[in-house]
Amino acid sequence: MLVVMNKDATAAEIRRVVKKIESLGLRAVPMPGAQRTAVCVLGNKGPLDPSFFNQMRGVKEAIPVSRPYKMVSRETRPEPTVVRFGKEAIGGGGVALIAGPCAVESEDQCMRIAAAVRKAGAKFFRGGAYKPRTSPYAFQGLGEAGLKILGRVRDRLGLYIVTEAIDHEILFRVADYADIVQVGARNMQNYSLLKAAGRCGKPVLLKRGMSATIEEWLMAAEYIMSEGNPQVILCERGVRTFADHSRNTLDLSAVLVVRQLSHLPVIVDPSHAAGRRDLVIPLARAAVAVNADGLMVEVHHQP
Amino acid sequence: MLVVMNKDATAAEIRRVVKKIESLGLRAVPMPGAQRTAVCVLGNKGPLDPSFFNQMRGVKEAIPVSRPYKMVSRETRPEPTVVRFGKEAIGGGGVALIAGPCAVESEDQCMRIAAAVRKAGAKFFRGGAYKPRTSPYAFQGLGEAGLKILGRVRDRLGLYIVTEAIDHEILFRVADYADIVQVGARNMQNYSLLKAAGRCGKPVLLKRGMSATIEEWLMAAEYIMSEGNPQVILCERGVRTFADHSRNTLDLSAVLVVRQLSHLPVIVDPSHAAGRRDLVIPLARAAVAVNADGLMVEVHHQP
Amino acid sequence: MLVVMNKDATAAEIRRVVKKIESLGLRAVPMPGAQRTAVCVLGNKGPLDPSFFNQMRGVKEAIPVSRPYKMVSRETRPEPTVVRFGKEAIGGGGVALIAGPCAVESEDQCMRIAAAVRKAGAKFFRGGAYKPRTSPYAFQGLGEAGLKILGRVRDRLGLYIVTEAIDHEILFRVADYADIVQVGARNMQNYSLLKAAGRCGKPVLLKRGMSATIEEWLMAAEYIMSEGNPQVILCERGVRTFADHSRNTLDLSAVLVVRQLSHLPVIVDPSHAAGRRDLVIPLARAAVAVNADGLMVEVHHQP
Amino acid sequence: MLVVMNKDATAAEIRRVVKKIESLGLRAVPMPGAQRTAVCVLGNKGPLDPSFFNQMRGVKEAIPVSRPYKMVSRETRPEPTVVRFGKEAIGGGGVALIAGPCAVESEDQCMRIAAAVRKAGAKFFRGGAYKPRTSPYAFQGLGEAGLKILGRVRDRLGLYIVTEAIDHEILFRVADYADIVQVGARNMQNYSLLKAAGRCGKPVLLKRGMSATIEEWLMAAEYIMSEGNPQVILCERGVRTFADHSRNTLDLSAVLVVRQLSHLPVIVDPSHAAGRRDLVIPLARAAVAVNADGLMVEVHHQP
Repeated sequence: MLVVMNKDATAAEIRRVVKKIESLGLRAVPMPGAQRTAVCVLGNKGPLDPSFFNQMRGVKEAIPVSRPYKMVSRETRPEPTVVRFGKEAIGGGGVALIAGPCAVESEDQCMRIAAAVRKAGAKFFRGGAYKPRTSPYAFQGLGEAGLKILGRVRDRLGLYIVTEAIDHEILFRVADYADIVQVGARNMQNYSLLKAAGRCGKPVLLKRGMSATIEEWLMAAEYIMSEGNPQVILCERGVRTFADHSRNTLDLSAVLVVRQLSHLPVIVDPSHAAGRRDLVIPLARAAVAVNADGLMVEVHHQP
Repeated sequence: MLVVMNKDATAAEIRRVVKKIESLGLRAVPMPGAQRTAVCVLGNKGPLDPSFFNQMRGVKEAIPVSRPYKMVSRETRPEPTVVRFGKEAIGGGGVALIAGPCAVESEDQCMRIAAAVRKAGAKFFRGGAYKPRTSPYAFQGLGEAGLKILGRVRDRLGLYIVTEAIDHEILFRVADYADIVQVGARNMQNYSLLKAAGRCGKPVLLKRGMSATIEEWLMAAEYIMSEGNPQVILCERGVRTFADHSRNTLDLSAVLVVRQLSHLPVIVDPSHAAGRRDLVIPLARAAVAVNADGLMVEVHHQP
Repeated sequence: MLVVMNKDATAAEIRRVVKKIESLGLRAVPMPGAQRTAVCVLGNKGPLDPSFFNQMRGVKEAIPVSRPYKMVSRETRPEPTVVRFGKEAIGGGGVALIAGPCAVESEDQCMRIAAAVRKAGAKFFRGGAYKPRTSPYAFQGLGEAGLKILGRVRDRLGLYIVTEAIDHEILFRVADYADIVQVGARNMQNYSLLKAAGRCGKPVLLKRGMSATIEEWLMAAEYIMSEGNPQVILCERGVRTFADHSRNTLDLSAVLVVRQLSHLPVIVDPSHAAGRRDLVIPLARAAVAVNADGLMVEVHHQP
Repeated sequence: MLVVMNKDATAAEIRRVVKKIESLGLRAVPMPGAQRTAVCVLGNKGPLDPSFFNQMRGVKEAIPVSRPYKMVSRETRPEPTVVRFGKEAIGGGGVALIAGPCAVESEDQCMRIAAAVRKAGAKFFRGGAYKPRTSPYAFQGLGEAGLKILGRVRDRLGLYIVTEAIDHEILFRVADYADIVQVGARNMQNYSLLKAAGRCGKPVLLKRGMSATIEEWLMAAEYIMSEGNPQVILCERGVRTFADHSRNTLDLSAVLVVRQLSHLPVIVDPSHAAGRRDLVIPLARAAVAVNADGLMVEVHHQP
């Protein structure tokens, strides 16, 4: 259920709606929009009766929400979410460029790559300090030392930092250094991590799981939003199929469908989808062609 | 094995290479290129000794072919194949537009749609006279009456006709009317059909099978080429995956990988991939962004 | 629509129902069952009014059929179809064993393998005279000479012959020699082949396509049955997935679901699913555990 | 690298091998087997020279390990791992039965179901106290209160308890109550959770991820073993494919392939694979037919 307020509804009227919802044993989350505020009702098992709210002062209408996700839905918020970073933004029209190495290896490596990607127009720098690795014997990242290097990249070059958190404890440490906290594909349904991401106070980049449906992906975003964090950026990175000519099959229709269903920005990571250097640039162009809000690409200084 | 001739090799020198190959119990197919002719050796079970050919007059070099397909391979022919239709072409740079209804229903329907798509810039008209249907109880197409309608569309509007053949007998009838004979996704490994397509004297549009690998798709094209028809156009139309938000998952990386492996032109059918009208135009833009040689789209006059 | 007749309905009463159906411009196919006859109505676009038939003499009831397939459906025929071969049968309880080489290579090879599989309890001999091959340069089978060898295997050893037809012309030649005509996975939606199979007068073994849904598979069987051939045997042989440890992923739940939806017998081919010799026997045991009506296995005399 | 000791190697000889390995800056994990001890070398980037160890006293041979996983590999330990619980065991021949409800709802519910499954022969009781849910608004489990109920089931009925941990903090709390700690499919690549599972001192049931390859699954088990926990039980529960007639496609060939590659026991969960009650029993029979070491089934008292 979504209680849509009049354009000129007062703060007191909104408060009364919130109290009414809470008096029913449910949760109320006011979501201010460009035109009006809507109050999202969470926690109801079955459908609610709109007449509970339709007569209240300041209420335009109470509308049932038909999707299993609520806060991420376009039904709840018709205008697109724009996540702002100083003068930069993800969502709302432009194509944000996030670039950098797979893993943070050294300060020298990061500074060289960061200088290059800034020159190429990127405003966001990516690099992993904590790396989720298939093998326990592979390099697992520099950890906090890596985060400190990323912090110095931001200070020196003015780039916004995107870096991954791999569990809910590490997430809060990551959030101290990052401008955007990344939740990786393997953790898309790690709900403890998603809940922490919802309470970390930083924008979250949520990658699509390797074989996640659109609904599962949006439900993962709902976990983050339902903990109070409205700043979620979705990232398509290819899905696992029978096809063996690229690492994953980039699913650009997902960008289009997500945009219809949700107000959240969607970016595309062609590097992980392709797993082959020669495919990255044309797939990035294709992502722009479907109006992705940004690109996330891997850059090596000694590829 | 590919026997590459010198630029100035004479017809007699080429003939001698062909005879030499045939004397080994193998098949020889000369493939004239922009710069030089190469003679493709078919039918050998294991690797051949290049010294059989390297000493012959007019031979530049004999090179082993490492892929299971030969005639479709870029190793055999580095320059792109361009299929020409009067002043129009598929391959070699532009974006050919093929548009029309799913099925030919009546002359009136076809003429209306054909006039509209011609106005929109299409030079090719598609429409099914023989329809492969999941259900035996569904409309199976107008058959030869449909082919005749398509012939009148060509005569009256000057559009080139693309239409599907669903078995090897029907294929020769279709080739009498069509400018391009289509082999559909369900028939991509119908080898009797592919062999007939190789002997029909018309360019062939070969759709990728629903779960075909790139190699299987190129091998299907090899069937057509090995019967003597060099004019094959490949068409990516989405593959079957777990994803349920679109009918198929459009695999644009396939366009890129095919172009590296083969000299054949590749077009994209976003309508069948999406199965939803709202996704067709952005996916078509994405196809152009990966340098597809053309687009094939379904158009209804009363959608 | 299915018009179910009374147990004691007369032939004249059935004929009148058929005529009534035909007078509506539709097709009628009487399907005699163990208890009673049902008349299947084909060709209607929308739902029919049961009252057309409910008042007719000999009619028990007219029931709408909710599935897109009709003749293959358990709604149409509750008792299982049993396909009989002399004293042998496929369906109805036992586990039929079909064994033999991938391709017919020589009479000597076939006789040796046939003798061995007969000793091991097989009553059915398989072997390909026409082979659908990914590569045009691979051995395509002995053709009619292979069929003749198979005929001699039957004559000498008393095994029933299962062999594949790869197009609708070849199918009638195959039907002259085979006891069961096989339609392979790549041809599951080759509708010209399916229609020919429906008119060939021999039982048909229909393999599931590489990425066919249950509904598509049953619709392919419906094509065969709707041409007048009630003797269809379904064969699960694994589907294409991301998994790379076996050639295909054997889908045993398909056997169970098909048995619920259809009266047709279902067998399992573990050899093609696994693509690895060591998996064949345990997967065959698993197929028996889900009550498959038979097994189809590849046997080499010099593996 | 695996340093295999002689049958009669002394503890001192083993210690010297461990020290030698550590002196190279690598990790050594002695793995006692039925016949002999092998010392697993972890942490080397490239291949090691066997001559480092071949001359040492008590060493039979030093053999390179060819797979990316080491401790889970049959190369490292040819005999099967048997996980023992009093007189019960998982692995080594029998079919262990793990049964119980999806979620712990109340003590009454658990006691009723537990009594029933014990009567049916189960020695292990499953039930979720922490539930990973697609929706943040769904019941997330009773948490620690649920664990206490499970503890009382064990005390009163003598069943061993299997229950899931959903993050690395909760895991240690779960391990206080559980006899087997479950890591669910969505968390198969949650490496913080896997590492905690490796240090929890209880056997771990590791479900296969929804689209995990065999190698990724075994690498996840390697994470647990490399932290010092040799008691890992693998659980196949179906993979995500295009097929829509069952929730997941049960991949029984995975049981067979895992058994070849690894010494760890493998069980099967037909309930989650099928997602339909009517398929569970036949799929369980099929799992036994491929020699699964156990079954895990969902049981409702009011289904």
